[in-house]
Amino acid sequence: MTTNQLVSEIKSKKSFLCVGLDVDLDKIPSFLLKEDDPIFSFNKAIIDATHKFAVAYKPNTAFYEAYGIKGWKSLHKTINYLNESYPNIFTIADAKRGDIGNTSSRYAKAFFEDMAFDSITVAPYMGKDSVEPFLAFENKHTILLALTSNEGAFDFQTKKVGDDELYKQVLKTSKEWKNSENLMYVIGATKAEYLAEIRKIIPNSFLLVPGVGAQGGSLKEVCKYGLSENIGLLVNSSRGIIYASNKADFAEAAAKEAEKMQLEMKTILDGIR
Amino acid sequence: MTTNQLVSEIKSKKSFLCVGLDVDLDKIPSFLLKEDDPIFSFNKAIIDATHKFAVAYKPNTAFYEAYGIKGWKSLHKTINYLNESYPNIFTIADAKRGDIGNTSSRYAKAFFEDMAFDSITVAPYMGKDSVEPFLAFENKHTILLALTSNEGAFDFQTKKVGDDELYKQVLKTSKEWKNSENLMYVIGATKAEYLAEIRKIIPNSFLLVPGVGAQGGSLKEVCKYGLSENIGLLVNSSRGIIYASNKADFAEAAAKEAEKMQLEMKTILDGIR
Repeated sequence: MTTNQLVSEIKSKKSFLCVGLDVDLDKIPSFLLKEDDPIFSFNKAIIDATHKFAVAYKPNTAFYEAYGIKGWKSLHKTINYLNESYPNIFTIADAKRGDIGNTSSRYAKAFFEDMAFDSITVAPYMGKDSVEPFLAFENKHTILLALTSNEGAFDFQTKKVGDDELYKQVLKTSKEWKNSENLMYVIGATKAEYLAEIRKIIPNSFLLVPGVGAQGGSLKEVCKYGLSENIGLLVNSSRGIIYASNKADFAEAAAKEAEKMQLEMKTILDGIR
Repeated sequence: MTTNQLVSEIKSKKSFLCVGLDVDLDKIPSFLLKEDDPIFSFNKAIIDATHKFAVAYKPNTAFYEAYGIKGWKSLHKTINYLNESYPNIFTIADAKRGDIGNTSSRYAKAFFEDMAFDSITVAPYMGKDSVEPFLAFENKHTILLALTSNEGAFDFQTKKVGDDELYKQVLKTSKEWKNSENLMYVIGATKAEYLAEIRKIIPNSFLLVPGVGAQGGSLKEVCKYGLSENIGLLVNSSRGIIYASNKADFAEAAAKEAEKMQLEMKTILDGIR
């Protein structure tokens, strides 16, 4: 999917909501456990109920890997279902991969070709040649970790490297990499006040913003500092939406929560016209 | 496996060789492609031929993920075969994972429980709460990326953060984390001259050293600066061993290369008595 297609989907749905599919068998409705593939059944119901309000879905690979081969099968079925049933939806493999060049190429192949995700999250620690193999794929997007939503972000990311914090170095340095137009960045919602500074460095890049909801970030704050000319935000909510209920009404409850966020987003988008 | 068990295996085999199982179907002998599971058949033959000379095996997960569900099945079979047939071998999932706390716990479960690896490589960018969930597992080891073997290491890892380079900050900071006795570190062989400085910060930690061979690092240099009181090194070779031949003699040729490295290691170990 091109960035323009993503922007037009955002404008038509009046939503920049990304739903995180972090599926935990201990948290989904117990009656689903009788199904052949409870993870996929859960995801399908959530996607069908929420797709009108969301522009992106983001399975976190850790939750699938934890269930072994079965989990990987559920992940494959989920991405295939999204691509077949909702081709205008932007898909994110939240995998936080990254390795030396020939190895990163393998990860890119796994997520962009074998599974046909539109994008993948990647860790920056190993530098340019660990990220460029992902950037080489046309109309695929590499979402680089910059400033994450967790407490540990303060261990290294906000430490000064010369005049800049490390996360700013990551933003500035990565802009120079080959095919950097395929870069997006992860910026945690819990650090919304950093967004004004960040927008000075990358005024137009799309930002994937986790941490609204369960982790405590505020949508209004994120938009105040983070919106760009072409909107440029994908705000993720996982637990707040997918676990809104663990009863028979779980999909309906998820849709209600997704709609609530979409309406907040619509108000904000209408306000900037 | 405990660190003491690893050290006594090293002493008894006079080897600190780790064999990297980065299996590429385009590079293995073509007659194996007729087998049911060519990746596992290749790994089994390589392991059976080289295990006398090696103390550790390190499948890089990217190479398995690139083949989808089939690749994951091959990885499962490989780790199960290693654990059943060679229980004294140290196993490393070269996965370079890392995420917020509840998500890192999932990765730890995947690699330490579902697959029963002894260790996993982890990226440090997200800090303490992204690594501690791995450290919580008893007799399991978390191998943190510090200074990697690739060119991109100079993008961020060697940049000054205050008085220290970032990779030194990673070493110093991580020493303070809970259960840090379960930490090992990745230090690339292509940067052997850094090892003297590194040993001042972490005199006894085990180091996983990739980059000897195909990537150009020297075993002698690595040992000169990197050996610790309890040896403290696992030197990895992948392509140089597993692709020594792509003919019918591939396992034999791999054994020869592994033995060559083991003999070099023996000479070095005998020299320090």
